[in-house]
Amino acid sequence: MALCIWCKCVACYFLIGLQFIRIFSLLKSRPVYLLPALDGDMKTMTFLQEVVDILLAYITESFDRETKVIDFHYPNELLQRNNWELQDEPETLDDILISCRATLKYAIKTAHPRYFNQLSTGLDMVGLAADWLTSTANTNMFTYEVAPVFVLLEYVTLKKMREIIGWEDGRGDGIFSPGGAISNMYAMLLARFKMFPEVKEKGMSSVPRLAAFTSEHSHFSIKKGAAALGIGTESVICIKADESGKMIPADLERKILEGFVPFFVSATAGTTVYGAFDPLIAISDICKKYQVWFHVDGAWGGSLIMSRMHKWKLDGVERANSVTWNPHKMMAVPLQCSALLVREEGLMQNCNQMHACYLFQQDKHYDLSYDTGDKALQCGRHVDIFKLWLMWRAKGTIGFEAQIDKCLELSEYLYNKIKDREGYEMVAPVIKARMMEYGTTMVSYQPQGDKVNFFRMVISNPAATFEDIDFLIEEIERLGQDL
Amino acid sequence: MALCIWCKCVACYFLIGLQFIRIFSLLKSRPVYLLPALDGDMKTMTFLQEVVDILLAYITESFDRETKVIDFHYPNELLQRNNWELQDEPETLDDILISCRATLKYAIKTAHPRYFNQLSTGLDMVGLAADWLTSTANTNMFTYEVAPVFVLLEYVTLKKMREIIGWEDGRGDGIFSPGGAISNMYAMLLARFKMFPEVKEKGMSSVPRLAAFTSEHSHFSIKKGAAALGIGTESVICIKADESGKMIPADLERKILEGFVPFFVSATAGTTVYGAFDPLIAISDICKKYQVWFHVDGAWGGSLIMSRMHKWKLDGVERANSVTWNPHKMMAVPLQCSALLVREEGLMQNCNQMHACYLFQQDKHYDLSYDTGDKALQCGRHVDIFKLWLMWRAKGTIGFEAQIDKCLELSEYLYNKIKDREGYEMVAPVIKARMMEYGTTMVSYQPQGDKVNFFRMVISNPAATFEDIDFLIEEIERLGQDL
Repeated sequence: MALCIWCKCVACYFLIGLQFIRIFSLLKSRPVYLLPALDGDMKTMTFLQEVVDILLAYITESFDRETKVIDFHYPNELLQRNNWELQDEPETLDDILISCRATLKYAIKTAHPRYFNQLSTGLDMVGLAADWLTSTANTNMFTYEVAPVFVLLEYVTLKKMREIIGWEDGRGDGIFSPGGAISNMYAMLLARFKMFPEVKEKGMSSVPRLAAFTSEHSHFSIKKGAAALGIGTESVICIKADESGKMIPADLERKILEGFVPFFVSATAGTTVYGAFDPLIAISDICKKYQVWFHVDGAWGGSLIMSRMHKWKLDGVERANSVTWNPHKMMAVPLQCSALLVREEGLMQNCNQMHACYLFQQDKHYDLSYDTGDKALQCGRHVDIFKLWLMWRAKGTIGFEAQIDKCLELSEYLYNKIKDREGYEMVAPVIKARMMEYGTTMVSYQPQGDKVNFFRMVISNPAATFEDIDFLIEEIERLGQDL
Repeated sequence: MALCIWCKCVACYFLIGLQFIRIFSLLKSRPVYLLPALDGDMKTMTFLQEVVDILLAYITESFDRETKVIDFHYPNELLQRNNWELQDEPETLDDILISCRATLKYAIKTAHPRYFNQLSTGLDMVGLAADWLTSTANTNMFTYEVAPVFVLLEYVTLKKMREIIGWEDGRGDGIFSPGGAISNMYAMLLARFKMFPEVKEKGMSSVPRLAAFTSEHSHFSIKKGAAALGIGTESVICIKADESGKMIPADLERKILEGFVPFFVSATAGTTVYGAFDPLIAISDICKKYQVWFHVDGAWGGSLIMSRMHKWKLDGVERANSVTWNPHKMMAVPLQCSALLVREEGLMQNCNQMHACYLFQQDKHYDLSYDTGDKALQCGRHVDIFKLWLMWRAKGTIGFEAQIDKCLELSEYLYNKIKDREGYEMVAPVIKARMMEYGTTMVSYQPQGDKVNFFRMVISNPAATFEDIDFLIEEIERLGQDL
């Protein structure tokens, strides 16, 4: 590394040669000679630097439109293309590097400007750096004692997010959880506990038959949560959506009056398939009237609140009792980063705490309110905060705003380009299969209700441009030409 | 970087100067010039390399016994020591690097050979490299389509783990979940569904009053899970433990006969405080007799099954219906890495699936059994598999075995050194506070039942040696001398 490539004197050649021999012989050695092994420092630095060089090359390639998004192979084929088996004997460091290269060769380039397949796309460089640091710090969010900085940053960031939602002085509570489905489950758990605190000790047998309400276009995690929490999927009442995918408030009110005890309404801010925003103000009025917990699932669309131009779609979110907001989607924070924000302070702690005395000792010498672990369903909790916090510092609030505005501008551009074209629907699965085989771009498809398959075009990738949208349309038409 | 430090010719000095100016001016620029910005390649590489240099220095320092484990500050003090606030305006790349350095300055050095504070300690270099790669690949475990290699590696690794447990041909099911608490919750959810499949649709109102059983020394996540799932903490019946912390099977049988419908027994393989192993064979006999789901919570001690010398402590685990096993604890895989293994195939899928048609399209062109997302409670799921898989390749099974054997040897050494000493108990919180202020080592303490506070010495750190154990004992005595 530290050798001259310009003067090319004999001494340098000699030193370069020595350097190569050193790296070569190191990489033929076993991982057991890395730290914490005695004198493992240099070997470790060389090994990690080799890995980083592989990663840097992959990053450059991922952003290059000339490379394929995907080098697709069927599962059985991929199993045979490499030796993925686990063995008794150790490998050499060189073998480890080979495995890293093979893994990346067959990985999906989710940072590629033409990757539109999921709600989470793109790769932010500051977010990535933050995630590398998080791995290196390798700690756990349960107590201030083992994660002082990260616990403070979670505190600072959740407060900021609550301020943006519009809760006075950013007051309230919240947590970063492993994904939007778990955040939604937390919300349902809190709503139930708020109405029937005895459920924690006595279970559902102490509670009348409950009903939760959400639109027919809502995310499946609402039903999944109801199944897990012992409420049952039949107690999740689906409310009709209008043709643009928004919940119809009149249908909500009608169904609330129909029978079981209403305890939870989940409005969706940005549905998974249509990207529709339920009318939050009208829904919140109904929730207030019937004293039902008002949750906003903004896993996908919640980030629009960062945009002065688009945040009107979330008008009424400040009335929510809880909000799911996933910065790993439209804000392009690396996976995973999902926040649940809760208006009432102390409720999460009361709902979930179990007072484990080995972890949350009450005689500690610092302010225990920073030991946030006992309000979580998890015991150990991954540090998901640092990447969001560092990206926020890097971009500023206005940077996130610009990123979101650009995504919406691209969507509008796409909409205008295809609104008069026809013939996409019926052949989506075949085109998708070809797309993956050619590897040129990736976009998802699905049916909705009685409609047949259609492409679901997601624009959350900060790397995408107008040209990439043009390319996508042309590619879909090219791949579908003979169908 | 690529400049001569030996020949020191004028040309080199000139080039070195240019290089510094280049890096300096780059780092004064905004993150918006990084990829995907046009011509962002070089800037990105320089920035990421600067971050890596900071991380490499931190790693070297973390393993150095001369450095402090912790630079402790009280929450309010830490809040004031740096500007942690989120602002509207972006920062420069240089500011970002300063934030990275500040974050690491106040972080706990969990890799330090004298960090004994939690069940997860140490930092494995191959695991770290794998986690950096995982962040770079930035994808999601829900479908084969977006994570082909990682989905296959999860398949390969879960199969291997089931083989080691002793299930025929490694058959069964499983998932990597965000921590042992969630793995245990999955087990309880499966047990309930197995006995009463109607609970998924109809909720707990369709089910008789249930009872779960676990030892009084078990992890608090069993109760937390019961509260969340609508079973209620009062339905978790605590079984007496003997003086070494093992569940007493006779007490289990007595309590199973007492009333509510028994559906779940969780035996603990390695309790959190004593490290005790419940007698699995005797417990499994009782579960068989009363047809109750037999779960083994081996979050902490499950890894002993990798050791030919110590795996007898888990005799009977092969009879379990489900097993929690956290490689992020004694196997020192970076956080988080927790597996739930399930003997019955297909049960997880039936229990949790919701058939979200936008994600798990049934007309895909590849084998759908690799789309594992619908058997999870999460929708998006972080890639936790690669670090375990790569470490396994690097060490081989025998490498993990040696690591675990060494931890147990150190425990025995500690036990022998302190068994005849007295006077630790009463002053644990004061010594702990001093320990954190001096920053020389970190170990946890807690009470258990009617016993007063004592230090809970965890040995899972692969960097620890006999000398570190000696240091710890001396340090505890030194810090407690005047008490």
